[in-house]
Amino acid sequence: MQFGSIEAGGTKFVCAVGDEQHNLIDKMTFPTTDPEPTFQRTIDYFRQFPDIDAISISSFGPIEIRPEAPNYGYVTNTPKPNWSNVDFLGTIKAALNVPIYWTTDVNGSAYGEFKVEEAAHSNIKSLAYYTIGTGVGAGFVLNGQFLGDQGHPEMGHVRLKRHPHDLDFKGICPFHGDCLEGLVAGPTFEARLGQKGQDVPFDNEVWEIMAYYIAQAALQVTLMLRPGKIVFGGGVTSERFLEVVRRHFNSLMNNYLDVGDLQDYLTLPRVPDNGSATLGNFYLAESLYNQLQES
Amino acid sequence: MQFGSIEAGGTKFVCAVGDEQHNLIDKMTFPTTDPEPTFQRTIDYFRQFPDIDAISISSFGPIEIRPEAPNYGYVTNTPKPNWSNVDFLGTIKAALNVPIYWTTDVNGSAYGEFKVEEAAHSNIKSLAYYTIGTGVGAGFVLNGQFLGDQGHPEMGHVRLKRHPHDLDFKGICPFHGDCLEGLVAGPTFEARLGQKGQDVPFDNEVWEIMAYYIAQAALQVTLMLRPGKIVFGGGVTSERFLEVVRRHFNSLMNNYLDVGDLQDYLTLPRVPDNGSATLGNFYLAESLYNQLQES
Repeated sequence: MQFGSIEAGGTKFVCAVGDEQHNLIDKMTFPTTDPEPTFQRTIDYFRQFPDIDAISISSFGPIEIRPEAPNYGYVTNTPKPNWSNVDFLGTIKAALNVPIYWTTDVNGSAYGEFKVEEAAHSNIKSLAYYTIGTGVGAGFVLNGQFLGDQGHPEMGHVRLKRHPHDLDFKGICPFHGDCLEGLVAGPTFEARLGQKGQDVPFDNEVWEIMAYYIAQAALQVTLMLRPGKIVFGGGVTSERFLEVVRRHFNSLMNNYLDVGDLQDYLTLPRVPDNGSATLGNFYLAESLYNQLQES
Repeated sequence: MQFGSIEAGGTKFVCAVGDEQHNLIDKMTFPTTDPEPTFQRTIDYFRQFPDIDAISISSFGPIEIRPEAPNYGYVTNTPKPNWSNVDFLGTIKAALNVPIYWTTDVNGSAYGEFKVEEAAHSNIKSLAYYTIGTGVGAGFVLNGQFLGDQGHPEMGHVRLKRHPHDLDFKGICPFHGDCLEGLVAGPTFEARLGQKGQDVPFDNEVWEIMAYYIAQAALQVTLMLRPGKIVFGGGVTSERFLEVVRRHFNSLMNNYLDVGDLQDYLTLPRVPDNGSATLGNFYLAESLYNQLQES
């Protein structure tokens, strides 16, 4: 058995093929340009693997995930130029004659992390995955299913209590200004300090401010969904940074709920090399394949 | 068939009996005093109805809802005097020989609203119910199930962006100060203005401030769960006030997601006379009964 993964990010696509143990057989990464050439590279890549049994796409968004919607499978109102109202799923389906699963990039990552967590200790039932990078978003797995009724979650756009030393920063979200994404996405470093995040020393108070906001996001998802675990991926995160997030989380929670050991509750991804979504896709493709066999 | 409802609030208990069409047969309300006499009145009430097939309790909290927990069925660390670590479910079960369902007060209300919504238009799949009263909390129904893995949601304790004209108010939550509950629960009127909410004229800016916070809560639950509908109950809400909440919600959302007509999306309860939880309990008791018959 072989399963395919398309991790479609706003800056790059990662296409990969895995075996039935979900081990990587092959992988190719290329920049996200306009839809047509990007889809063509994706299709050309998978045509090299005619034995693939199913593929899963986890895409940047917003995307339409409701099967009953007329534009199911589309990237919808994204600010990314030329990508609004693009039929992603339909284009790939028309070219490759295999079953294809369709979800968000962060759902794919959440699923990959959920499956390795499940393998490590089998009693996990729910997991949130936040990416803090160029954009901010989150996926959520509950009992093996994704959350979202009228669409997928958009957890990056919640509002937060502003840090007292950050009240003048307007935020960079084109829709909301100072929502979570507008306050902590990677490009906020340039907006606040005129330098890239990787160049900002860790004793700069901006890291404290960012951690305060991300801790509030973790608190929100804890209070609203009571998950088993919250994973943070994306370029802004690191173990040292997460330590600061945990400290703020603890102080915001003020012993109100017991979430267990914070070292296990708020963590970096378990899957190495940004591979969470690829692994998640292998599992999702497998699960789609099995479902179709049964029906 | 007869089903029983125990709506256990922090200030009063409402015990009721319904028929198999979920119509009210009988109801009794009494103040919540210490656990022992309150449970005794509850038990005495239901002993008048020996034909009851199942009961559902929806209780103030926090409560333990995980069946595998050693203190399943308990009210846990509530600030309400004498009610911490009290075996609510066990006490009622030991006295009344019927199956008993156990959930939170707001889940009971959410379920009642979900069922009437389902009857009114059958395509509803998820619904949030917020109570804004002495305390603030929310229940959530998704495909007929309640949310919450490591425990029930505690949506009243999220943090919010503070209103610029309200920055000096510390909030009244004993755990968190200015969380949602600390900013909009009924007693915040006395804390901010020295007078009861019912005496505060509607042109006082406090109503704008409250609406701004409640709109943020609605925005959070929308972005995190994409529900079909959000219902607001509790003493603070009214149709006139909800109009202001809708205006703030609209401006915070800034056309980012389509939630349909806000008049249908953010509403008062459909069930009249604060009856949402009682109706929800009748349905939950019925559902428990049917489940036991099948197994």
